[in-house]
Amino acid sequence: MHDTGPLGNLIKMLGGLPGLGNRSARRIALHLLMNRGGLMVPLGQALQRAAEEIKTCTTCGNLDVHDPCALCQDHKRDISKICVVAQVSDLWAIERTSAYKGQYHVLGGLLSALDGIGPDQLNIDSLVRRVKETPPQEIILALSATVDGQSTAHYISDRLIGFDTGITHLAHGVPVGGELDYLDDGTITTALRSRKAAG
Amino acid sequence: MHDTGPLGNLIKMLGGLPGLGNRSARRIALHLLMNRGGLMVPLGQALQRAAEEIKTCTTCGNLDVHDPCALCQDHKRDISKICVVAQVSDLWAIERTSAYKGQYHVLGGLLSALDGIGPDQLNIDSLVRRVKETPPQEIILALSATVDGQSTAHYISDRLIGFDTGITHLAHGVPVGGELDYLDDGTITTALRSRKAAG
Repeated sequence: MHDTGPLGNLIKMLGGLPGLGNRSARRIALHLLMNRGGLMVPLGQALQRAAEEIKTCTTCGNLDVHDPCALCQDHKRDISKICVVAQVSDLWAIERTSAYKGQYHVLGGLLSALDGIGPDQLNIDSLVRRVKETPPQEIILALSATVDGQSTAHYISDRLIGFDTGITHLAHGVPVGGELDYLDDGTITTALRSRKAAG
Repeated sequence: MHDTGPLGNLIKMLGGLPGLGNRSARRIALHLLMNRGGLMVPLGQALQRAAEEIKTCTTCGNLDVHDPCALCQDHKRDISKICVVAQVSDLWAIERTSAYKGQYHVLGGLLSALDGIGPDQLNIDSLVRRVKETPPQEIILALSATVDGQSTAHYISDRLIGFDTGITHLAHGVPVGGELDYLDDGTITTALRSRKAAG
């Protein structure tokens, strides 16, 4: 019925996207078929256009229609800081806060013994090269507080020994708006140890 | 950042699909950009192809590359039964069971006073026409057990008075695999009243 032909093919492709299964793929396919001119054809064109026009910035690894990307080309941004993130989505998350106005470096993932991801698969060499060419004052390792994130942070810190560059990482503690009762022991312990003077 | 240009446009379109929000749209867009040749371009082409090739069957309202659709053209199917469903997804759900081998009629929705959907917006006239031309022995109203589903069923039954056609609806009761404790009172009451002899 809907397992073969162009419809079956479309549902199979949609169902393979992250977060979508068979049922949601069928629902999306039907929704698109009900709005072909206004939704389905434009979405197909948007996919083609994005696939053709979006490039990976050769400096920082960000995705943009320009290379170097808009962030690397923005002269108002502070070039004395490089914030190292695992994925472009992390860069977006930090940009949404408007709390940081420096440069970025996207690793493209985290070191992972389990998934067989070593230093060569990540943009670590290009980071070291960037630091060598124009040494920043500070490198912020904005990596996840997981085993992979922390081992990646350690590895990068080791690679940057000898450069006159400060290395910092994000503060660990209670998330803003987070309830103590729902937090894990590790977070509470860290937050207690890093406690600050009130006021 | 990712709010403008082809990437922002793509994320906005993906985020408007049923079941997807901004965050899942960003995740899908990044996933696609990481697999352009193998995933993103083929998905764009699949959307275009499905939009061009898939038609609505003028007999039953099903979606297929052929008109009349493969189900209406299948001479092995029982033409003495028409199963009336609200959406193509309901037709798919019944087809997946392989428990029914008759014809279908897709209404394209349900009567809804709240959403302002009247009989003219649904494929009810075409159903009456079908029954008039080749009267089936049985019409199965496979509509949801909701207020809208039941009022649509009543309306269709009224429209079919005078034809020599039996009208049935799906049995109500405890879902197979359902636990009594989690069922609503209405379902338990219905299941009790429609109880059957054991064995």
